[in-house]
Parts: sequence; structure tokens; C-alpha cells
Amino acid sequence: MAEFDLIARIRQRVVLRDDVVLGIGDDGALLAPPPGQLLAVTMDTLNAGVHFPPETAPADIGWKALAVNLSDLAAMGAEPAWCTLSLTLPRADTAFVDGFCDGFLALAAQHGVALVGGDTTRGPLSVSITAHGFVPAGAALRRDGARIGDEVWISGTLGDAAGALRHWQAGAPMTPALRDRLDRPTPRVALGQALRGLASACIDISDGLLADLTHICRASGVGAEIDIDALPASDALRSAFDADVRRTLQATGGDDYELCFTVPPAKCPAVQALVAQLSLPLTPVGRIVPGTGVHCPGLSPGASGYQHFV
Amino acid sequence: MAEFDLIARIRQRVVLRDDVVLGIGDDGALLAPPPGQLLAVTMDTLNAGVHFPPETAPADIGWKALAVNLSDLAAMGAEPAWCTLSLTLPRADTAFVDGFCDGFLALAAQHGVALVGGDTTRGPLSVSITAHGFVPAGAALRRDGARIGDEVWISGTLGDAAGALRHWQAGAPMTPALRDRLDRPTPRVALGQALRGLASACIDISDGLLADLTHICRASGVGAEIDIDALPASDALRSAFDADVRRTLQATGGDDYELCFTVPPAKCPAVQALVAQLSLPLTPVGRIVPGTGVHCPGLSPGASGYQHFV
Repeated sequence: MAEFDLIARIRQRVVLRDDVVLGIGDDGALLAPPPGQLLAVTMDTLNAGVHFPPETAPADIGWKALAVNLSDLAAMGAEPAWCTLSLTLPRADTAFVDGFCDGFLALAAQHGVALVGGDTTRGPLSVSITAHGFVPAGAALRRDGARIGDEVWISGTLGDAAGALRHWQAGAPMTPALRDRLDRPTPRVALGQALRGLASACIDISDGLLADLTHICRASGVGAEIDIDALPASDALRSAFDADVRRTLQATGGDDYELCFTVPPAKCPAVQALVAQLSLPLTPVGRIVPGTGVHCPGLSPGASGYQHFV
Repeated sequence: MAEFDLIARIRQRVVLRDDVVLGIGDDGALLAPPPGQLLAVTMDTLNAGVHFPPETAPADIGWKALAVNLSDLAAMGAEPAWCTLSLTLPRADTAFVDGFCDGFLALAAQHGVALVGGDTTRGPLSVSITAHGFVPAGAALRRDGARIGDEVWISGTLGDAAGALRHWQAGAPMTPALRDRLDRPTPRVALGQALRGLASACIDISDGLLADLTHICRASGVGAEIDIDALPASDALRSAFDADVRRTLQATGGDDYELCFTVPPAKCPAVQALVAQLSLPLTPVGRIVPGTGVHCPGLSPGASGYQHFV
């Protein structure tokens, strides 16, 4: 009966919300969506050894598994509300579950997200989460709204998570500030909602700026140019890598979970005003142009991943 | 870019619904829930070698992964609408994906369920699905409504899937009729909705009748008595096993995905009338009594799993 013990351990600790009519413990959850809003739904899975190093702390796995889903809701401009969790473990391991919950539920509490159900199964370590949020009809941020002349903006800094991963892959110690970006990404939930009515298109950067911006270009039928020297970098990244490697990490490294969004010129001052309001750097890094693909002059031609995206 | 090819293959074949404002291909789906109804949400994961034999046909894996989720919605009395799919594969395997889609989308089409998003990742074969359905507020079937004096009813027949699994575990050939129950369970979706206002509690039988009825008893604060000889069996099961083994399979075998539900005596004639209406056997097999746990006199004391549930 280990499954039921694990579920009981998780159930005790979840956020409560009035719109959860029935939560964990039945065949399904019963939820009351707010009238007049659309439901935004996203689902992401993280597998040990593929999406995180196997030795990652359980609390960091819990945090990150929810963060990548909240990041998708942020990229839609949605307000997070509910999630379900499927946790696959090699064996019933209460220490792992408690640690996992520490990270998972800390982030859930920050955003008022209720865990309303899911599944625990036996198998190789894997975490699958479905997250639900609300967004007024017509206000959602999509990938297909970028127009020629729009500016391309980025939140925060890029390349930190990929820098940590590069250290890990080389067997080198990870700089703590970089490792924290890899293990505990910050989903830009407030920014996503603030960009309703301002951004013409938006995506979160999970696979790397060039790859993810390519999705916007393809969906919108446009091209983009990126100013490699405009890409924001953290001090930690500048200290850890030479300029050439750093630029590659910024342009092609994944796992940062910053937002990449396009803004019509007339709305750029309003976006600039969000910097102070949200205490979050927002940087224009390029523009939407006629054509296809993402062009990034100055990036080393051999840079990992670069050839795939243009 | 194999992930995007796989997604494109799946995307071409999904059911379309008017309430899907934005489906596969953005950071998340945008969905329009019907006003005045609750959203029922359930999530189940199937792992190769744990929930199905590794050599199971891809089409059967696709069918079953959706079926177990629709079965949970059925047990809530909900009308299925949308699902998300996370498919983890050891390698990008278009033959597997096409086969998987054959089974998955055939069942989705039967119930008008739109696949609206999800994830494809690399790792050991695993399928995680989140299914969404609608149920009018107050009409949902729950586990906590059984009352002393209610009758316990079962849909269909029990033990077939466990019989097939027993053959498989013994290395014996599986009887086709039993194997079909294991590989292609039928979620009792129409029955679940028909039981709104009739059943006082409901659960689907995934872990075995005694185990699953125990959940109803625990949630409702009651006990139950089962008449072992009243449990319905298929002709295939009767031919394949002697009476003692058969009874154990019926009472404790999982994976049948029939509904177990409790009915106040005054509503039993209306339930009986559903048999003809739905062309589905429905059988009273016991009653809700004071106390705790599920009692099943006549079941072999050493029957697998029996001792856990009383």
C-alpha cells in the first residue's frame, strides 16, 4: 500500500483554493473554472538523466518540474491555478517524496497553485506535471502574433543554466549562481500576465533563444535578427566563460526559462516601464524582419546548435 | 528535431472541437470550459513492464493509456472532452508513434476527446495522460456517498484482465477474449453519466474489486459485504480457470476498468433499467453495512491480495 502512503504524505501539504471542489483522493478532481476566462493547460515531463543530472537534490527536482510548467503558463500570459502530478519512482522512498514536496510545494505556494490530483507509479525516476491557469479570452500570449518591425525582448539574463550544465558535463565544479539557475529556474509568471496587451507574441526559453524564437518566427510567418552583443549576461556567466563560449551559451543554451517576446514599437515604452514595476531586467535584443528563420550575425559559425535554427 | 516531427505526426490526426481555442503547437492549449459545469480532471501514467507487458502492441498501449483515464472520468460521472499526452520513448520511433496513435486516437474519436497538447521526451517507455471532462455541479459521482443499506453493483464481468495477466506471467498462451480485456479495456463512459442521480458512490476497478470498494468504504465511513457467487464472470474466464482461481481473479484482479457503484434500494429499479438501455450487464453483488472494510465470505483465505483489504 506504499502508493497510498505516498499520496497521504503529499496530500497533507497542498495549497487550498476555493475553486477546488474536490481535490486529491477520488477518481479525479472537481474544479470550478472562473466564468468568462479561458483555461490554459500545459504538460511537461522531466526524466532523470535527460532533463536533470541524476544526483540532483529531490527538492530541486520538485521545484524545477513545477517551474517548467508554470513557465509555459507564463508564456501564455495565464494566471496559474491548479496542477496534477504524476511521480514515477524506482521504489517507495519517503525521504525522496518529502524532499521533492519541499521544492514542489514551496514554488506552488509562491503562486497559489493547488495540487489537485495525479498518480504515483513504479519505474525509472520521472516527473510529469499538468498545469492549469486562467486567461481572459483574447488576452492570451501566443506564438503566432509577431509582426515585421516588432522588437524582440528578453527577460532576465541568458546562458546561466547552460553554463552550469557545461561545467557538469565536463566534470568541473558548478558555479553556485549558475547551478541555482539550472536547478531552481524562476518562472516569469508576473511578467507573462503584465505582457497581456503589450506583447504580440511570447515563448519561454527552454531549448535556447535561437531555437525558441524560431518557433515564434515559424508560427508568425516572419524572420528575426538578433544582436548578439545585446544579449544580457549575468556577472557569474561573464566570470566563468570567455566571450565566445558565453555568447554561444546565451544564444543557444536552454533551461533558462526566461521569456522571449515581441513588442510593437509603440508599446516598447510600456514594456520598459515594467522593469521597475517587476524589478526584472527586460532587454531589447533584436527585431522581427521579413523572411524566415533567426539570424544572429557574430555568433561563431560552429556554435553548438546554431546551424539547426537558421 | 525529432520531437517536432513526432508532434507533427500526432497533430495531424486529432479530433477537433469548438471549445478548443488553441490546440497543439503553442506553450499551452487554450480551452473554453462550458459555463455552469465543473471540470473533472484525472491523470494516470502507464510504465512499460509495470502496467503492461513490454511486448504489448503500440496500438494497444495507446488505447489503454487513454482508456484508464476515461475510466476515471466515467467513475466521476463526467463527460470526457480534452486530454494532454506525455509520451516518453527510448528513441524517436515513428512506427511506434503511428501505432500508438492508431489505438489512442480510435478511442479518443469514440468519445469525442480532443488531444490538445503534451510533451514528447526521451527515456524508458512511459505514457502519462491528463484527461478533462465536464459534470454539472452537484451531479458528480464520488467515493464518499455510500450509505448503510445501499446495494453494491458491478458493470460487465470481472477477472478477465487478471486472467490474461496470470497466463502471461506463467508463460502460457493468453485466451484471446481475456487478452482483449487486458489490452483494450472499455471505459464505461455512458454508464458513468447515466448513474448521475442514481449511484450514491462510484469507483472504477483498476486494482481489484476488494481493493477499490475498500476506498469507497473508507471515504464513506462504512463497510461492505460481497456475495462471492454473485460476481459476474465471462464464459472465457469460466473456461480458462477452475472455480477457486476464478473467484480470486474476480474479487481481487485488477485492470478490468468496470465500475463499482452503490445504489440506494429505491433507485435499484432505475439502475436495472439501464441494462437494456446501455446493452451492458449490471449486477448487484453485495451491500453496504455498518463497520469498516470489505467482507467476502467464501473467498479462499490465501487468495492473492485478500488479506490486505479486510
